[in-house]
Amino acid sequence: MALFGSPGKLSGLLLRVGQCSFAAASIGVMVSAPGFFNSTAFCYLIASMGLQVLWSFGLACLDLHALRSKRNLQNPILVSLFVVGDWVTAILSLAAACSSAGVTVLYSRDLGYCRSPHIPCSRFQASIFLAFISWFLLAISSHVTFWLLAAV
Amino acid sequence: MALFGSPGKLSGLLLRVGQCSFAAASIGVMVSAPGFFNSTAFCYLIASMGLQVLWSFGLACLDLHALRSKRNLQNPILVSLFVVGDWVTAILSLAAACSSAGVTVLYSRDLGYCRSPHIPCSRFQASIFLAFISWFLLAISSHVTFWLLAAV
Repeated sequence: MALFGSPGKLSGLLLRVGQCSFAAASIGVMVSAPGFFNSTAFCYLIASMGLQVLWSFGLACLDLHALRSKRNLQNPILVSLFVVGDWVTAILSLAAACSSAGVTVLYSRDLGYCRSPHIPCSRFQASIFLAFISWFLLAISSHVTFWLLAAV
Repeated sequence: MALFGSPGKLSGLLLRVGQCSFAAASIGVMVSAPGFFNSTAFCYLIASMGLQVLWSFGLACLDLHALRSKRNLQNPILVSLFVVGDWVTAILSLAAACSSAGVTVLYSRDLGYCRSPHIPCSRFQASIFLAFISWFLLAISSHVTFWLLAAV
């Protein structure tokens, strides 16, 4: 099947590269914000985005290899591996992005910490925004692979 | 197909009743905790669990009707409606549960608010735990309906 974004296609490779780069950008912005380690949720965001970088980078390499050697990645065992990995990574990423977003909303609206210049709220928000984009791209990939598994 | 938990089956009805009751219990525990309205994340948890109660209760009624009149709910249009509703509700529930969990972890580990007897941290934790159970049951339902849609 030639579904958009399926493994071993150019669209699939672009999705993986997008996930990997947005997750890496999210880590970069978060690490550059001083004092992020005071909140457990932000440390968890970095860990979860790190996992997503590893997973997406690995699959991007696999897609690239399949594109260059014109091999077909769509056998049931490989696709079920992709499905399990994609779902676990997607749920962890969404959980990390949402818990960090909850903490940032608490900082800015409920506790009023963001009025102080010592807390880099805008960096936190940018990092969480990048994490949500990365999660959204991963969610597309995981729905496509789940659909492929059901249709194989 | 007679998949576990598919709409119009007894297992599907039990899943919906479970989602509905755990979400209602989560709202109940959160409302009984004094001071929950000081955090935006907890208010969002209540709103999202309220949506889940409505959605799961509606589908439980539909399942019950299908069981009693022995009708088949598995035509493509109905199943795609269920898929869209289930996914939207499941993502909102997970987001609400995770953002509340992030705030609770911040309260208990990073800010040390839970040492004060005025903040009912154990009620917050119980409510979030119930919300996660409710989300887990909804995730089973939504994967089953997505699988049915792909196989219809």
